Amino acid sequence: MVDVVVLGSMAFDSLETPFGKVDMALGGSATYAATAASLFVKPGIVSIVGTDFPEEHSKFLESRGIDLKGVEHAEGKTFYWKGKYGFDINAAETLDVQLNVVEGFKPKVPEEYKNADYLFLGNFEPAIQKSVLEQMAKRPKLVVSDTMNYYIEKDREAVLEMVKLSDIALMNDGEARQLFKTSSLVEAAKEILKLDSKIAIIKKGEHGCIFMTKDSFFSAPGYPLEKVVDPTGAGDSFAGTLIGYLAKTGDLSDENVRKAIVYASAVASYNAEGFSLDNLKKISLEDIDKRVNEFKKIVEF
Amino acid sequence: MVDVVVLGSMAFDSLETPFGKVDMALGGSATYAATAASLFVKPGIVSIVGTDFPEEHSKFLESRGIDLKGVEHAEGKTFYWKGKYGFDINAAETLDVQLNVVEGFKPKVPEEYKNADYLFLGNFEPAIQKSVLEQMAKRPKLVVSDTMNYYIEKDREAVLEMVKLSDIALMNDGEARQLFKTSSLVEAAKEILKLDSKIAIIKKGEHGCIFMTKDSFFSAPGYPLEKVVDPTGAGDSFAGTLIGYLAKTGDLSDENVRKAIVYASAVASYNAEGFSLDNLKKISLEDIDKRVNEFKKIVEF
Repeated sequence: MVDVVVLGSMAFDSLETPFGKVDMALGGSATYAATAASLFVKPGIVSIVGTDFPEEHSKFLESRGIDLKGVEHAEGKTFYWKGKYGFDINAAETLDVQLNVVEGFKPKVPEEYKNADYLFLGNFEPAIQKSVLEQMAKRPKLVVSDTMNYYIEKDREAVLEMVKLSDIALMNDGEARQLFKTSSLVEAAKEILKLDSKIAIIKKGEHGCIFMTKDSFFSAPGYPLEKVVDPTGAGDSFAGTLIGYLAKTGDLSDENVRKAIVYASAVASYNAEGFSLDNLKKISLEDIDKRVNEFKKIVEF
Repeated sequence: MVDVVVLGSMAFDSLETPFGKVDMALGGSATYAATAASLFVKPGIVSIVGTDFPEEHSKFLESRGIDLKGVEHAEGKTFYWKGKYGFDINAAETLDVQLNVVEGFKPKVPEEYKNADYLFLGNFEPAIQKSVLEQMAKRPKLVVSDTMNYYIEKDREAVLEMVKLSDIALMNDGEARQLFKTSSLVEAAKEILKLDSKIAIIKKGEHGCIFMTKDSFFSAPGYPLEKVVDPTGAGDSFAGTLIGYLAKTGDLSDENVRKAIVYASAVASYNAEGFSLDNLKKISLEDIDKRVNEFKKIVEF
């Protein structure tokens, strides 16, 4: 039995930022999200890797209590992404993408996952996200999904359907503006709420994020990082912490979702201070609490 | 005797936004800043207008207790700006600028202004800003200055000197990145502090603003406006409220500057909900307090 089911990619990332570079580092949305969620609860991953995926990465994930029964090992190579971040650290330039085993991926949700109350549908085609949701034995208590500008351009209607099927459809400011064809993030958040969502969360990178329900508006600041060493996985660490914290507390009240967002922002900020999963591997709950307290001081007036 | 001396332009603005347009409306940095400051204290303006500047505008400013002894009436036309805001409401497209009487402007600070404790150096050439500072009988208790990408491109060194001469050098995120050649706003704020400033404030438009001293970091959220009707003068309303509130309270403590920033954000948000000075003319201290309380709820967790 797992607490949170995490759908997403497992990948090798080669990337360069103004602060250095890594080659064939562990990456992928499921990897980041599940590692972050494992700080709070037991996640299980639904994903696919190739025969080149090293045992040491699986061992690391298992050492965090992450269940890998839902990870298919297929003939071929693991998903590969190569990118570069320049002066504007918010925007990655993709130099190479090799889908490899992800091409034609049909996710299979293990029996032991099907009654989980918390489901995170990470960055994959909306059809793959929907298939995982449909394989669940019952509607989970909370479905969080993520999207990407690539899918909005390719099939806007399918992305809108996933927003409708999710309780929280995470997106960043650029994606929200693009999906709802508006310059106003408040207007975009209202559009999300119209699509049967009780909660709208729009991430704004270094500017933090906003949270809106029909009765409430919350703005979480960005943590003041002097150096963003590697922003890869920030959104997935955010999502994994959010759903992990909510699964652990079992409390979806306005007050607790605000707290979960600040925890998520704290973990994402740590993640951005190191390459790959370096910092996610290191940080403890005490580190996170410390940063959450800093967030309190940052907004105090 | 005035409480705050405000240097800046007085202008006619013709502009178009997605929500409508106005022609030859009252504008200019001094107009916005002094009107905002007059909610709290008695400002005096140092500026220049042409013979076409209508009596009704002067009467309005005087009705707010604003002293106009420092406004030179020169032969010729008043400064004119024509602009357009598109889908991205944060960036104005300038369609026409006519400096008119501002060309060759030599500011003269009236005797009655020279002992004021609070000085706002609005958006003008650094040399004009410096000249006003030098005409003061003593160093004011607080000097707040503003700049603009135009001057950074034209004479970076002169802008840096003004940052050094000011206690608070206001700039927006784009200007801060440009002036200090960095993508990190935290790094830019540290550079401001290195230049003898005790306080760095960087405005981020819809994302609010950050405030940094050597011991403290504060992030004020943007007010969740669904419609930004006209962003013209938002920065000047912010600056005018900031210095007006600080002059009224006479308290430059960390805690009080944070409050002043939230008051300034509240007034700037009202201003952006209407064209020209329409909303600045209407709002009361009660309206502002109401919005400041909303800001409290927005950041609560």
